[in-house]
Amino acid sequence: MADTNLTAILYKKDDLRLEDLPVPEPGPGQVQLCMQQVGICGSDVHYWTHGEIGDFVVKAPMVLGHEASAVVSKLGPGVTSLQVGDRVAIEPGVPCRVCSYCKTGHYNLCLDMKFCATPPYNGNLARFYVHDADFCFKLPDNVSFEEGAMLEPLSVGVHACNRANVRLGSKVLICGAGPIGIVNLVTAKARGAAQVVITDIDQKRLDFAKSMGADAIIKVASPDAKAIASQVEEVLGSLADVTIECSGAPPSIRTAIYSTRSGGCVVLVGLGPDLVELPVVNAAVREVDIRGIFRYANCYPTALAMVASGKVNLKPMITHRFTLERSIEAFETAKRGEGVKIMISCSRE
Amino acid sequence: MADTNLTAILYKKDDLRLEDLPVPEPGPGQVQLCMQQVGICGSDVHYWTHGEIGDFVVKAPMVLGHEASAVVSKLGPGVTSLQVGDRVAIEPGVPCRVCSYCKTGHYNLCLDMKFCATPPYNGNLARFYVHDADFCFKLPDNVSFEEGAMLEPLSVGVHACNRANVRLGSKVLICGAGPIGIVNLVTAKARGAAQVVITDIDQKRLDFAKSMGADAIIKVASPDAKAIASQVEEVLGSLADVTIECSGAPPSIRTAIYSTRSGGCVVLVGLGPDLVELPVVNAAVREVDIRGIFRYANCYPTALAMVASGKVNLKPMITHRFTLERSIEAFETAKRGEGVKIMISCSRE
Amino acid sequence: MADTNLTAILYKKDDLRLEDLPVPEPGPGQVQLCMQQVGICGSDVHYWTHGEIGDFVVKAPMVLGHEASAVVSKLGPGVTSLQVGDRVAIEPGVPCRVCSYCKTGHYNLCLDMKFCATPPYNGNLARFYVHDADFCFKLPDNVSFEEGAMLEPLSVGVHACNRANVRLGSKVLICGAGPIGIVNLVTAKARGAAQVVITDIDQKRLDFAKSMGADAIIKVASPDAKAIASQVEEVLGSLADVTIECSGAPPSIRTAIYSTRSGGCVVLVGLGPDLVELPVVNAAVREVDIRGIFRYANCYPTALAMVASGKVNLKPMITHRFTLERSIEAFETAKRGEGVKIMISCSRE
Amino acid sequence: MADTNLTAILYKKDDLRLEDLPVPEPGPGQVQLCMQQVGICGSDVHYWTHGEIGDFVVKAPMVLGHEASAVVSKLGPGVTSLQVGDRVAIEPGVPCRVCSYCKTGHYNLCLDMKFCATPPYNGNLARFYVHDADFCFKLPDNVSFEEGAMLEPLSVGVHACNRANVRLGSKVLICGAGPIGIVNLVTAKARGAAQVVITDIDQKRLDFAKSMGADAIIKVASPDAKAIASQVEEVLGSLADVTIECSGAPPSIRTAIYSTRSGGCVVLVGLGPDLVELPVVNAAVREVDIRGIFRYANCYPTALAMVASGKVNLKPMITHRFTLERSIEAFETAKRGEGVKIMISCSRE
Repeated sequence: MADTNLTAILYKKDDLRLEDLPVPEPGPGQVQLCMQQVGICGSDVHYWTHGEIGDFVVKAPMVLGHEASAVVSKLGPGVTSLQVGDRVAIEPGVPCRVCSYCKTGHYNLCLDMKFCATPPYNGNLARFYVHDADFCFKLPDNVSFEEGAMLEPLSVGVHACNRANVRLGSKVLICGAGPIGIVNLVTAKARGAAQVVITDIDQKRLDFAKSMGADAIIKVASPDAKAIASQVEEVLGSLADVTIECSGAPPSIRTAIYSTRSGGCVVLVGLGPDLVELPVVNAAVREVDIRGIFRYANCYPTALAMVASGKVNLKPMITHRFTLERSIEAFETAKRGEGVKIMISCSRE
Repeated sequence: MADTNLTAILYKKDDLRLEDLPVPEPGPGQVQLCMQQVGICGSDVHYWTHGEIGDFVVKAPMVLGHEASAVVSKLGPGVTSLQVGDRVAIEPGVPCRVCSYCKTGHYNLCLDMKFCATPPYNGNLARFYVHDADFCFKLPDNVSFEEGAMLEPLSVGVHACNRANVRLGSKVLICGAGPIGIVNLVTAKARGAAQVVITDIDQKRLDFAKSMGADAIIKVASPDAKAIASQVEEVLGSLADVTIECSGAPPSIRTAIYSTRSGGCVVLVGLGPDLVELPVVNAAVREVDIRGIFRYANCYPTALAMVASGKVNLKPMITHRFTLERSIEAFETAKRGEGVKIMISCSRE
Repeated sequence: MADTNLTAILYKKDDLRLEDLPVPEPGPGQVQLCMQQVGICGSDVHYWTHGEIGDFVVKAPMVLGHEASAVVSKLGPGVTSLQVGDRVAIEPGVPCRVCSYCKTGHYNLCLDMKFCATPPYNGNLARFYVHDADFCFKLPDNVSFEEGAMLEPLSVGVHACNRANVRLGSKVLICGAGPIGIVNLVTAKARGAAQVVITDIDQKRLDFAKSMGADAIIKVASPDAKAIASQVEEVLGSLADVTIECSGAPPSIRTAIYSTRSGGCVVLVGLGPDLVELPVVNAAVREVDIRGIFRYANCYPTALAMVASGKVNLKPMITHRFTLERSIEAFETAKRGEGVKIMISCSRE
Repeated sequence: MADTNLTAILYKKDDLRLEDLPVPEPGPGQVQLCMQQVGICGSDVHYWTHGEIGDFVVKAPMVLGHEASAVVSKLGPGVTSLQVGDRVAIEPGVPCRVCSYCKTGHYNLCLDMKFCATPPYNGNLARFYVHDADFCFKLPDNVSFEEGAMLEPLSVGVHACNRANVRLGSKVLICGAGPIGIVNLVTAKARGAAQVVITDIDQKRLDFAKSMGADAIIKVASPDAKAIASQVEEVLGSLADVTIECSGAPPSIRTAIYSTRSGGCVVLVGLGPDLVELPVVNAAVREVDIRGIFRYANCYPTALAMVASGKVNLKPMITHRFTLERSIEAFETAKRGEGVKIMISCSRE
């Protein structure tokens, strides 16, 4: 295997290969990027193990990877916002820029979004990659490439907390202490949440959440949504102002509703089965809003400011590191559920 | 039966009686009201026929009626905002005024709300009644007592359309063409909705909705939520910006979600079973918010302005009229599902 | 003068010429437009008579015109949203699509906006013109080309009323009854404003405003801002919920503040001198917000819906009509302040 | 001077006396409070030295003091939310509870507000005082009485930052580093502001601001508003997202506008002359909102949560301490402009 542009390509379910591709050239408004760090997301693993997520099916070979940082290696025509050598974080989705969602600031809802490693669009787990310059965010010196890659999951937390309108002094419940639960935790705290309680079925995850700033943890050992809600109420001294549900588990979504005060809101971040039985009357008559999220829009600048200003420290989340050459090993580790965040270094050894 | 203060009292399920009570005296900040018109609401009928609604159970005799207008007949100590002889509409709920919901403008969520004809609080289907002066809204000459009584259901539409944020140019779906569907229809149009389509299973209701300004109607003949959503999309030329669900029927709630565009919202006004199976992933990843309502707060002034300025004409909604003495007959008519709104005149014949 | 693409070019102050230019070809994502109707805006006249507006100076010949409708005559590469023959209204500003303002839905604040007839960008008072397809809005059959051109000023009203948050039942003061005052009037009414009072120094304009739906008019005959505010309060029965200032005159801006209730807002649409003496303490301690507007963003769809649904009738605003060949005559008429809106027909006679 | 209820009474300008008054009895819904700590506010000093602030004139003897904490010493009829012995912070304004401002959550704009030490209402610089129970906030053990008193100025910061909508990652300019500038600084940081730069004419104040968390300070040495704005832009790397003006000085208000990015906002907290010359066109065409504040509404719970959760440490602000008996000495110290916050202990020695 020669190595001009070593790339991790998912051919189909269970068929991930490392191959050498030509180095791509940047078009107008684009930059060529020498990739540095790429984190493995649950969706990457899921495409590998299942070949699909919902309506998104891998029908042709697709490069994986979308949590990434890089160094600018070449400028396409017309690019003035970046220079060769700039260290950047890559916001992985480029929308159409012309539809009403793009024009109203909700580009995450754009129907023509090209998002890395969502079929049929290639990701950036490779040596080189090209991307629109305005979706590359320059990293200051005090932000590492690993942190740059972490801005992607952090942006999910930023968007979810925006949707939840977590406020200074809020009492927040987060359901699920996986990586997405953690980025919501640190974002909620950074917005001034007075108390954040987090639930999970796994004690190790809860312990990690505690170390990342959770004010309280609740180990969920039963599907009795009302019982868990009572525990939440006891721990917080009242119901939660907002709940951010990151597990997707139906009992947990019900817990989210029962645990939230009248006039508060539940944000659904985790995804589970298509149809879920919900206590609709309970939510409706107490005006507890139920809001979903889809990725994020305009959140990278905030995520970057959080890290650059020292408000959050994401480094403890990175528990495993691999080289690009060892990507398959990295994916196997992720599949086993080890660690919190696995990072792949894409620079040539 | 002497008649000093003839009053319609629900003793228990199926036991509605007309009795003469003492005329109540107004306390500080209150006014004594000589009742004029009281509309019958579905909840009044439901208490009569079932003795309860959800957690609210009729455990002691309770006066019915909460959609009402009156003439001020006596001022309690300290009242300066009204005068004897003033014609008023009565907002039927008086909150505690001290909790955080009351202080933040969401008094409809106050846990200590005293709401007419919700157990254990008496309603105002009577000759005389006392109420806090600041929840009585002076009617201008061009607003009739019947219209004054209609401000109560209209306020539900005002609150629901606030929660839905119906905007100038919005495309709106309303599910259910009963009285609450109609008040939402006229409110949505008054806010500038470009198109309002309304669904129901009853053609007569749909025809009435058409006469009240619906741009299109859809007769629902199947529980296939996605099929109805397709019809909505065809009629509107796109999915709805917002949907106001007034039926409470589970298939209709699912239709509401499928019919709403990404980034839009569904407001739940109608109530059905406690638990409903919802397409949660569909709503979440398209960021379709699901919001309930509980009564209304700060909506009477808007409702009054709508009627007083001639923006809406509610008169066609009033299809039946009875005297207070014939209240039981009025309730029997309502129970049979006849007409749209039944009005009871409380002034002495 | 041959006529392939007759065009109205402002060479410099007081030097407006009609010349024949080559027909432009559409680039990727663009359409070539056969121009139909172009309205004359005060800014067009001002560039002609002064050669500049604020920092915008006519340094090179510039085509005038930005309130326009057209027929699509040719599609550029990649355009699928329109077809040749489509009748369209043209939103005259095309932003950069990559800056934070563009991405957050506030593209009117984009620093790289290319706006028709704002130096150095050409307008569209011509036979042919090219424009980005996504800023062309297809007109339904029941909307005329003149109305299509009127969507431009109407969008100013839509944006101003968005910023003002005119609500169902609002009491609104509009200062200034020129064309922009009128579009704000009709938009405020379409949003459900209960009462709109409008001020001007010119009785004819006020009479026209009355005919367009103003509930009350006030002729301003003195610079005493507090005195006018008292008149407004008397007419409305209270201070205004929101005030939309369209004159730019300093005394009128002060009137706007004094006339607005605590917690309300003043939107500044009209522009006057750079520095204006304002009653800052009065506004601040009553929490009367002062908000400006710059053009509009995402308002054309709403403006189109208003006209297409019949909610507003802008036809009475068009008082004078000229052909493209008679453009200079049209500008002279506008300069004399005659009529309300002057429309130039660009189709070949 | 016997001492049952030693009280600091302002008879008129320059005439502050300590006198013994009867101990007041709590009415329904009220509590009697054994006062603990009362901070001196600039307004207290101003009433003492000038006898008036704007329209508020001391026409009869008035007790001073409104930044206060206490112990509940007696319950009035109907009070269940507090117990004798509870340690509380006192929100000093009690609104009418019946007007539209009170009902919509904006009780700070209530025209019938009874606010401590604003003529004609008495303050609470005394041994004993009665207040409505729902405006007394129970302090947890880890919040001192001095901190409880500091919740009053902190609430001004909470309200101003709410109005400014300071967000996670925001760049904030605060003009003026007095006590109110400082509470805005700590609140902005607690909401996640990425950078806060603060200006003042006094180096000592700026040094204190730095010690309280300001990311940068600018000493103002000229009235050239644009020059200061350039410095702000240089320090922040861009214009400010929001500016909170706490000085009231006209040049500083102009700096605030020039320093704020398009689409941002300026919040006016400091008050200066009634009329101020402002760059209205600059603000308007860049859509920089100008918003005032009046005291605060619903901010005590947030302020308390900030202190109780350890997010902010206000203790360094308290630079001088006096006993109630030495109140006049305390006021003289405040008048000389010494220190940051002067606290008076009201408990019997």
